[in-house]
Amino acid sequence: MTIERVVEVALRWGDSDSFAHVNNVVFFRLLEEARARVIPNEGPGSTLLKNGLVVAEQQLKYTAPLHYRLEPISVGMSVDHLGGSSFRLAARVFDAHTDVVFAEGFVSLVAYDFATAAPRKLTADERQWLSS
Amino acid sequence: MTIERVVEVALRWGDSDSFAHVNNVVFFRLLEEARARVIPNEGPGSTLLKNGLVVAEQQLKYTAPLHYRLEPISVGMSVDHLGGSSFRLAARVFDAHTDVVFAEGFVSLVAYDFATAAPRKLTADERQWLSS
Amino acid sequence: MTIERVVEVALRWGDSDSFAHVNNVVFFRLLEEARARVIPNEGPGSTLLKNGLVVAEQQLKYTAPLHYRLEPISVGMSVDHLGGSSFRLAARVFDAHTDVVFAEGFVSLVAYDFATAAPRKLTADERQWLSS
Amino acid sequence: MTIERVVEVALRWGDSDSFAHVNNVVFFRLLEEARARVIPNEGPGSTLLKNGLVVAEQQLKYTAPLHYRLEPISVGMSVDHLGGSSFRLAARVFDAHTDVVFAEGFVSLVAYDFATAAPRKLTADERQWLSS
Repeated sequence: MTIERVVEVALRWGDSDSFAHVNNVVFFRLLEEARARVIPNEGPGSTLLKNGLVVAEQQLKYTAPLHYRLEPISVGMSVDHLGGSSFRLAARVFDAHTDVVFAEGFVSLVAYDFATAAPRKLTADERQWLSS
Repeated sequence: MTIERVVEVALRWGDSDSFAHVNNVVFFRLLEEARARVIPNEGPGSTLLKNGLVVAEQQLKYTAPLHYRLEPISVGMSVDHLGGSSFRLAARVFDAHTDVVFAEGFVSLVAYDFATAAPRKLTADERQWLSS
Repeated sequence: MTIERVVEVALRWGDSDSFAHVNNVVFFRLLEEARARVIPNEGPGSTLLKNGLVVAEQQLKYTAPLHYRLEPISVGMSVDHLGGSSFRLAARVFDAHTDVVFAEGFVSLVAYDFATAAPRKLTADERQWLSS
Repeated sequence: MTIERVVEVALRWGDSDSFAHVNNVVFFRLLEEARARVIPNEGPGSTLLKNGLVVAEQQLKYTAPLHYRLEPISVGMSVDHLGGSSFRLAARVFDAHTDVVFAEGFVSLVAYDFATAAPRKLTADERQWLSS
């Protein structure tokens, strides 16, 4: 996932705030949803979500207003840093047709063992999926 | 729309609560989204959303737990009452493959003029679309 | 709880939708929050939340628009039906100063055992708290 | 506001996700709410919200898990950069009793004229309030 993967995420009318823009907070919800859809449910990489993953840090720069629409928006993600128990996703929310970017930034994630409430090492399979 | 129309609505991982079920409140969000997608943006009926519509009453009975999944769920809606300035949608949230119904109930909507902050009469075009 | 108990719930700016009203869906979130605050954490009744409670049905009639404000709104709840494994709360969202009611309806709740995924009998303590 | 101001923000049971933690996305909602409560509604500074303010960039580092609780959490904010039409708030979400910090980061805001859809200069009053 060092090369950008793109996931389509559906907007909801209720994502808009009083200014009739998709609210800035919601963009992080869109990133969360894109992660839930890009990390596989089976095979290599699937233990990432199953074994637990927590957000350690995230940042977004908003570059264009986004209005509710029926067509999904696109979320691009690529691994731009891989550590022992963590990795960082560069992320952008954009329109696949016009290439307009609505927001871009990153999310740092830590492999986490909820049973021991502590970070855990990424497995070889997970590292391979993340660097493929 | 007296015959049920079905709209697919995407779930989000974040729709789940501490019990890891899609939260009961979120079902009303799914209904809202389905309305935003079933009412046309152009032609007959399109003035319903453009001219303003408010929810007067809504009710849901929850019949099966719904868990986050990648495939959208289905929302069926049909007009079961048509008044002078209002109408009622019977609604259900279900799985189109298994026919499992997760929730069913209704939403009463009032055509509303936000400029005068008062209900308005449904137009002939709107009534025709609602009863078609 | 057969006599109405009133809980104050804080609004959030983000509760408003494109129409700059507190969104109709959010009212059910306010009811959820009021339940989390009216059911005790210790002593009689506290097992209701701890042992599991699911919403079986809920309904609201919207009677006045609610706008974001810094002061909390009031949620009144009273038990108007008590069954073997379920109970019903009459509920209203209102302004304690002006007595304006923004929404009123009910929520039916079922005591639920998440381990067995089945309803459970209300205990004597729970019944006493609910009918006190 | 160059010295930290602290606002209390109420949590909601529904802020928790499947992991039974206050969800990472919700922290940005808490920051939004804190801004809505720290910027005055009348007098110096009040034009900031009235005349329009958009989030240009925001970042949070999560430092401790936050669980739903009845007592509000505290959000501290201080202006750490003041530009011609923008300013930056250093922000942290913490427990005022234990001093545990759950998240910290910043939000960059731009004074925005929705009528012209363009940034606007901060007024002298606004600058004075922001640097007081």
